[in-house]
This record gives sequence, structure tokens and C-alpha cells, in this order.
Amino acid sequence: MKIFSQAPTNIAVIKYWGKNPKFEDYHIPTKSSLSFSVLDFYTKTYLDFKPGNGTIFLELNNKKINPNSEEFLYIKNFFEKLSTLIKEIKNYDYSIKTENNFPTAAGFASSASGFAALAVAIAKVFELSEPKIFEKYFNSEQKISSIARLGSGSAARSVPSAGGCVLWSKPKQDLTTQDLNKIFFCSDAKTLFPPNHWEDLRIFYIQLEKKEKKIKSRSGMKQSVSSCPIYSNWVDYEENILLPSIIKAIEKKDFENFAKSTIKASNGLHAIMYYTFPRIRYLTDKSEQIIELVLDINSKSTKLAYSFDAGPNPVLFTLKDYQEEILDALSSVVNKKDIFITKPGAGAFAKVI
Amino acid sequence: MKIFSQAPTNIAVIKYWGKNPKFEDYHIPTKSSLSFSVLDFYTKTYLDFKPGNGTIFLELNNKKINPNSEEFLYIKNFFEKLSTLIKEIKNYDYSIKTENNFPTAAGFASSASGFAALAVAIAKVFELSEPKIFEKYFNSEQKISSIARLGSGSAARSVPSAGGCVLWSKPKQDLTTQDLNKIFFCSDAKTLFPPNHWEDLRIFYIQLEKKEKKIKSRSGMKQSVSSCPIYSNWVDYEENILLPSIIKAIEKKDFENFAKSTIKASNGLHAIMYYTFPRIRYLTDKSEQIIELVLDINSKSTKLAYSFDAGPNPVLFTLKDYQEEILDALSSVVNKKDIFITKPGAGAFAKVI
Repeated sequence: MKIFSQAPTNIAVIKYWGKNPKFEDYHIPTKSSLSFSVLDFYTKTYLDFKPGNGTIFLELNNKKINPNSEEFLYIKNFFEKLSTLIKEIKNYDYSIKTENNFPTAAGFASSASGFAALAVAIAKVFELSEPKIFEKYFNSEQKISSIARLGSGSAARSVPSAGGCVLWSKPKQDLTTQDLNKIFFCSDAKTLFPPNHWEDLRIFYIQLEKKEKKIKSRSGMKQSVSSCPIYSNWVDYEENILLPSIIKAIEKKDFENFAKSTIKASNGLHAIMYYTFPRIRYLTDKSEQIIELVLDINSKSTKLAYSFDAGPNPVLFTLKDYQEEILDALSSVVNKKDIFITKPGAGAFAKVI
Repeated sequence: MKIFSQAPTNIAVIKYWGKNPKFEDYHIPTKSSLSFSVLDFYTKTYLDFKPGNGTIFLELNNKKINPNSEEFLYIKNFFEKLSTLIKEIKNYDYSIKTENNFPTAAGFASSASGFAALAVAIAKVFELSEPKIFEKYFNSEQKISSIARLGSGSAARSVPSAGGCVLWSKPKQDLTTQDLNKIFFCSDAKTLFPPNHWEDLRIFYIQLEKKEKKIKSRSGMKQSVSSCPIYSNWVDYEENILLPSIIKAIEKKDFENFAKSTIKASNGLHAIMYYTFPRIRYLTDKSEQIIELVLDINSKSTKLAYSFDAGPNPVLFTLKDYQEEILDALSSVVNKKDIFITKPGAGAFAKVI
């Protein structure tokens, strides 16, 4: 049977950077994060499955992926991990054809949309074939969000079907368990505000660099957790002060405070990276130029927020009314063809085709 | 009578960034700092004094300074501050001719050497003219270090006559006093290791930019104290972990650990600045290039430490044996004429001429 699924990328305003080291493989975040699922950048996945023993065939962006390649191993490890709890995963062979409508591995969070699309597709497999297993492990978006998390942490946020502004919560209590069921489902994401809550919000992706980043997020965040001397203080501040304040700003559609908090969160993340040993610097000279431009524009009136993930490419937030003016201002630093404008959109879905 | 004094600049490896806001004017640091007084960069001051009412004449680098100019007001405020406790300061008129043997206000810490040279000269005034006042306020290097601190915090570290590696300690206990005598003398610097303790240490000043910095340290550090969410955590880490570890490395002449701690301290300072709101960024693209070069060289074997103050110009530490190799490596990024090589040297002195 064949399933089609689709999931958006998401851009976090409160970032995910660091896992509980006791459960490294299970991507349990040290703190909560908050993102927007975006309308125009997504992964489409075609999943063909049949009874089998867990064999995987993978095609990414119309190219067959070699079983020894890194991309293949990511997917394979994900299935292996799932099968430690859900052994029925191995009851099938999977042919996965997946494609992104945006450049892979250039800061557009392709692993987020990719694993979200895969997770909802797998859920559909069991909904169709093994209702008891579905009931046990996949019968809510939050469970599927947890499943996606095991592929790539930030994929958890791309799952909730309403999309929009999504909160991925850290576990409610400290985890010290050996219970795989608890470890799997301790941390998931849900929509706080649907895409139409803030109709005027606009999101600019700016592609300053097209090449892959030097340091993978996975190893980078591990370094930060273990070596940044004030990592845990940053976690406390983000969890207890910055996150509630930005949720409030979004709730009220208070752009000024939203922008301030978003900028603070981005600066904080990159300060933590800078204070990691050895230090991590994702921002390039070009990134800094964009920051200066944003601060310069905002010095008159707050019209922009910037946010940098683990890469050099900025994502800017603005309002519809400022869109043209911002585009003009950006043209001094960046080519218009490298600016992609979108807005909050829906989350993931899967259907039989 | 005429006094000549001389004081070196100093380069901190554990930085001073932030004052106790309750005593803003008195430059009481939130944490201790550690520096090297350097051999080749210093301020020479000629102080002519005669009975009077506190009138000041100021010449800086052979140029008469206008009484309304910023430089003049710095000096005037310093005398005013001193006179709140030591009213005899106003018993004299002062003609101050001062010159730096290095570019002023380009990251060579001219206020440190300048106020240190002035403080030891003023001490000499009272030693010669009013022994009772001298006994009360100037009869130890640590007291004179405190006096220099009131002009510019980091000047405290340029005073101890032995120079070398100098520790400027934060107050031993929390200050809540109104007692000016306590406020003046609560925090001073002393030599931990004289210059000849580590004969092979070399210090490279690299002048990437000659112009003055955009944000003065005074306002920058005030912003950090009030707005960086993890400022106090950084203070705790530096005071309790990093400072003892770097002192130990210097004691043992353990260059590898010295370099690691020095780099951590520099990264930490700039992370705190980056996480200040609005953010402060002193490092330029050129600065980052130097950092990359240092990390690249160290990836084979630790031969360098970098340290950035509140400005773009790096100071590198290395050992005599590596000096030529490092100079060659730097030539790809920076002109040789902009590299100034020195080593730890003595502190301040004053004499009658």
C-alpha cells in the first residue's frame, strides 16, 4: 500500500540546543522550544510498504541513497530505535521516496520536515495494518510528535497538524527511568496558536550560504551541554523567563516584544555556542551584516526580528505592512533571489494514495 | 616641584567587565581579574605641583587638552572624586604632561597606564609635602592601586611596582557601607608572579584597527550587568573556577592550560557581550580571522592563546621558541608592522626630577 505524507519545516524562536545526556539517543531536550511551522517549505514523502523484515529502500530528491551513506544511516537508525519499543516496525519493508521543495542541508531544517513526514506516514501504516499497535503508540498527534523526535529533535515541532506556533515541551519531570515507553513519550509538541492567529506575520528565509554547515548540530549541542560553563543558567533563563514572555507577545500579537525576545533568544544561543569549548561559531561576516542592518532599522521603529539556527542563514520576522520596505532595505546586502518569503502554515498530514 | 612617573599598560587574561552598581563611580568590580603588566607599552607623566586650589592643566601626547574635552573631564572627575575623601587634594595646583609610547584609545589600555602613572605621581606629591596624609592614604602600593582604580578600573592592575602577573581582587565581603574610606580601599591589585617568573612568555599586540571603539567600556559593561541574563553566573564561574585554574597554570608555567583558560576567558567575555541587550560586538571579521588562525595552529599543538578586550584588536600569548613561527603564520592575515611583541614587565614608579 502506498501513503503520501507532507510536513513543513519549522523555524524556532526559542531554540532547541542540547539533550539530556543520560538519554542521548532519545533526543530529550534540556528545555522547551517554540517554533512556527512554515507554509511554503516542506517535505513530501511517498511510502510504499509491504510485509517483510524491516528492509529499507530510500530515495531522496529523486536520487537513490546508498545504504552506507550518512542519510541512509540516519533513517535506518531511526527505524532501529523505534523497533526497540515497537518491534512490529520490523513486520514491514519500506520503500521511502522523499523530496524537499527547498535546498537540503542549507539551514532550512530539512531533517525536521523529513522525519515529521516519515513519522506521520509510519503512523498511517499502523492505522491501516495493525490497529492495536496504532492504538498503543500512534493514536495522538502528540505521540506521533514524540516518534518524530526520535529521528531529529526539531521534527517533533513539525508534526502537529494545526501547525502555526508550536511548543515542544521538555519532560514534565526529571527522567531516571529504564522504561522505554516513558522515554519515548516524555516530550512532545503541540500547537499553541494556529497559523491564522497572527495573519500579518511574515517570515523571510535568507540564503546567504548554500553549502552545508561545518559542525553538525548533533555534535555541536553535545559540546555545549558538556563544556559551556553557563549552559544550565541559560536553560533556566530561557525556560522560565524568555519562553513565557514570548508566548505572551505572540498571544497579544505584540510585535515589538516578540521581536525583542526573538532577538534575545538568537543572541543567547550564539553566545552559548561561542562560550562552548572549543567554541562554535556559525555566524559569518555576512550574517553579522544582516544583524547590523536589522538593528539599524529597528533603532527607528521595531519592524524586524532575526533568528539564527545552527548555521549562517538568517530568518527574519516582520509584518505584512513592512514587507516591501524590508525587501528594499535587504537588497543592499543580499540578492533578492536569495530571499524566500513565507508565513506560518499548517503541520503534517498523511493519506493513502 | 616636579615628579616623573611611569606606568605600563596591562593585558588581562581574566577580564574586568562590570561594576557593583551600588557604587558605580568607585569602580568596584563584580569579580576579580588577572593581568600581565607589559614591558614595552607605558605612559610617562610629568607632574608639576604647587600650592593652590586644585586647578588642573593637562597636556596629552604634547597637545594641550581643552578643559571641556572628554579627556580633561576624566582627569578632573578623578581629582574631584579623590577630594571627597582626601580633601587635601585641593591644596595644590597640578600641571600634568602625559604621553603614551603607543597609540591612545586603540585597545592598548591607555586609561590603565595613564591613571596608574597619575596615581603614583600623586602619592609622591603627598610623600614629599604632607607626610601625614601620605601615611593615611598612600603608604602602600595596594592603597595607591585603589586610588588608580578610581580613575579607571583596570589602572589598579598597572600600579604594583613588581608588575608581572597581577591579581586585582574584588572586595572580600559585600559592601553596604556609606564609609568612603572603606569604599575607596575595598579592592586593589597586587603582583602574584614577577616578570621573570615566566621568562619565555611573549605577548603579541596586533593592531587590526586604529580607530577608537564604538562603545566605550564604561557604558558597555553597565549594559551587561543590567541586561545579560546570565551575567552573575559568568561572574561565579570566572571567580571560582577559571581564575584559580589559570593562576595554577601560570604558577606551573603550564602553557597548554594557560592557553586554554585564556581562550575560554576571552570567549566568555565576548559571549556575555553578545548576550547583552542590545548586544555588544567588538570583534570584527578580521578578529575572527585571527581566532580561526590561532585555533588552526593549536589544533596540532598548543602554541598560542588569544585574548580580546573591549575592542577588535587581539593580544596573543606564546612562548619564545614559537615566536618566529607565529610571526610567519600571522603574516597571511596581518601586516608585520602592525604586530608589536613584548613580554611581562615591571609596574609603576614615581620619582622627583
